[in-house]
Amino acid sequence: MAILTFIGAGQMASALTFPTFENGHEIRLVGTPLDREIIDQLRKDNYHINLKRTLHDGIKYYQVEEMEEAIQGADVILGGVSSFGVDWWADEVLPKLNKDVPIITVTKGMIDLENGDMITYPDYWQSKPAGKELNFNAIGGPCTSYELADHDDSWVAFCGHDIETLRYLKQIFETSYYHISLSTDVKGVEFSVALKNAYALGVTLAVGLAEKREGIGKVHYNSQAALFGEGVCEMRKLLKLAGAGADNIVYGAGDLYVTVFGGRTRKIGTLLGRGLSFDEAMAKLKGVTLESIVIATRTARAVRNLAANGKADLKDYPLLMHVDEIINQGKPVNIPWTAFETEYVGE
Amino acid sequence: MAILTFIGAGQMASALTFPTFENGHEIRLVGTPLDREIIDQLRKDNYHINLKRTLHDGIKYYQVEEMEEAIQGADVILGGVSSFGVDWWADEVLPKLNKDVPIITVTKGMIDLENGDMITYPDYWQSKPAGKELNFNAIGGPCTSYELADHDDSWVAFCGHDIETLRYLKQIFETSYYHISLSTDVKGVEFSVALKNAYALGVTLAVGLAEKREGIGKVHYNSQAALFGEGVCEMRKLLKLAGAGADNIVYGAGDLYVTVFGGRTRKIGTLLGRGLSFDEAMAKLKGVTLESIVIATRTARAVRNLAANGKADLKDYPLLMHVDEIINQGKPVNIPWTAFETEYVGE
Repeated sequence: MAILTFIGAGQMASALTFPTFENGHEIRLVGTPLDREIIDQLRKDNYHINLKRTLHDGIKYYQVEEMEEAIQGADVILGGVSSFGVDWWADEVLPKLNKDVPIITVTKGMIDLENGDMITYPDYWQSKPAGKELNFNAIGGPCTSYELADHDDSWVAFCGHDIETLRYLKQIFETSYYHISLSTDVKGVEFSVALKNAYALGVTLAVGLAEKREGIGKVHYNSQAALFGEGVCEMRKLLKLAGAGADNIVYGAGDLYVTVFGGRTRKIGTLLGRGLSFDEAMAKLKGVTLESIVIATRTARAVRNLAANGKADLKDYPLLMHVDEIINQGKPVNIPWTAFETEYVGE
Repeated sequence: MAILTFIGAGQMASALTFPTFENGHEIRLVGTPLDREIIDQLRKDNYHINLKRTLHDGIKYYQVEEMEEAIQGADVILGGVSSFGVDWWADEVLPKLNKDVPIITVTKGMIDLENGDMITYPDYWQSKPAGKELNFNAIGGPCTSYELADHDDSWVAFCGHDIETLRYLKQIFETSYYHISLSTDVKGVEFSVALKNAYALGVTLAVGLAEKREGIGKVHYNSQAALFGEGVCEMRKLLKLAGAGADNIVYGAGDLYVTVFGGRTRKIGTLLGRGLSFDEAMAKLKGVTLESIVIATRTARAVRNLAANGKADLKDYPLLMHVDEIINQGKPVNIPWTAFETEYVGE
């Protein structure tokens, strides 16, 4: 039995209490300053107000000011903040952590630097003075929190620089329904699952375009499949551009698949496809956090910066560029179909 | 304006009359012996009884005994038979064709030889005495006939050994909604789109498994996405095994995406996932032709033959092997999740 301290009581971290608690570990779930109500309710009856599931009885709950107590004696720290909590996590949590205790984070995303370089969150945290000696690992892959909480078979990748740490984490987390691959290619796994957010928005434009023509609720697939194929193609090129192994497209393709069907990104893509402007679509979704917008913007900016330095060709990423034009330049949806066409001569 | 003779009046060939007729070409649509009723009805009012769409007025229709008249003066021959008509096409049509007239086929699939080699239909036809000098090309990619007939934006790949022929065909077929990439990697394109049928059956097992647990009509995605990711992974390995460029996974991934949502393959996979035996599931779908069953069987047999000769490792294809066990050995669905897990050490 190990002691696991989860910092951040969002949906994914809270869903991960299911496999870990069921494996017999002590689970301490700590809220961020934004999770106060979640923790309050959990303490009453184990009901998670955002995940909308009752967690196992026996999990220990902590408000943010009790974090240090929760960290005491932990064997593993799980970071459960969203990409909007990356700096809070760096500033408020990292200084409290012990270099001998492995960390595993569920935060999906990446950061682009001014020169166009793209870095993962684990690498970003490692670059901080308080993070320099810490042992960061991360979870990627196609797994939604609700279905994990419902014990659906789910398959993820744990990535980190040390395979022994990854094997240790795997035996703590793995259950009969939570399946784990391991990879030391951190960039590969992390970029795959970050990029898929940008492309899920791209694919779901076709959902709205079909509805605009056929009526809301009518589903057509040829155009979605075309954008899906183009998305996979551009994601593979972006992985290479970022110095990550293109084989990781396996995670990206599965994750793109699940994201196209899930929640907020599909909503915004569909609304844009129907013909709403970006501002109109955002107004309809007020209050929701849209990581897809952040990732699409950062990736497009990185590629533009790399292109300005002769290190990338914008023509290789027509779908990404169009998504960026829609969300950041107010342009209407007008899929650049002919730009997707390729001509390959060879075996 | 060119004269295009379509041999086989199935759904895909008939859907392709839309872009080509609209481009101003003369279209001659010839039924196979199985298409007699289709042609009879088309002659009355242009209504296609299987595609359930009215074709353009002005298309010329021919019964099979009028084939030679329809071939006279044609600039392009389109082969529209399904994989069940491959030998009829070889025996009855190829001897009537002219080596200077390019052929383009929509038949998806592949044939496995006893030694485990997998060959494309164009290569199979080329191996026949009557096919030796003919100029074969083929269409792959994610495109369903109904949506093409409805003028949805669709993206396909034309493949063949001569890029000039492919460019000629592209300018004949391409419209504002029918988008075409070109590739001389015939094996790559053809195997991608063939293999996706086997894997679409694999992915949709998860649809039925979720329904078995949650109730029919309930849709969960984690398990589907996991199988989708595994499918993409195995398809890439199979492309390499068959000597095709693994980059073609772009077509395979898009085509897998559209097939998971379309028709018959989803039905059989869902029924199997719900717990029906293969025989029970087939009985429920009586009368439908299931190319996915054919392809899964052939691919699994090829891999087993290659493995017997030390040229492949069955452990690389756990999903394919399980699909084969279900359909050919009467085994119940029991997804081999842990066999999907990988450990990658490297950058």
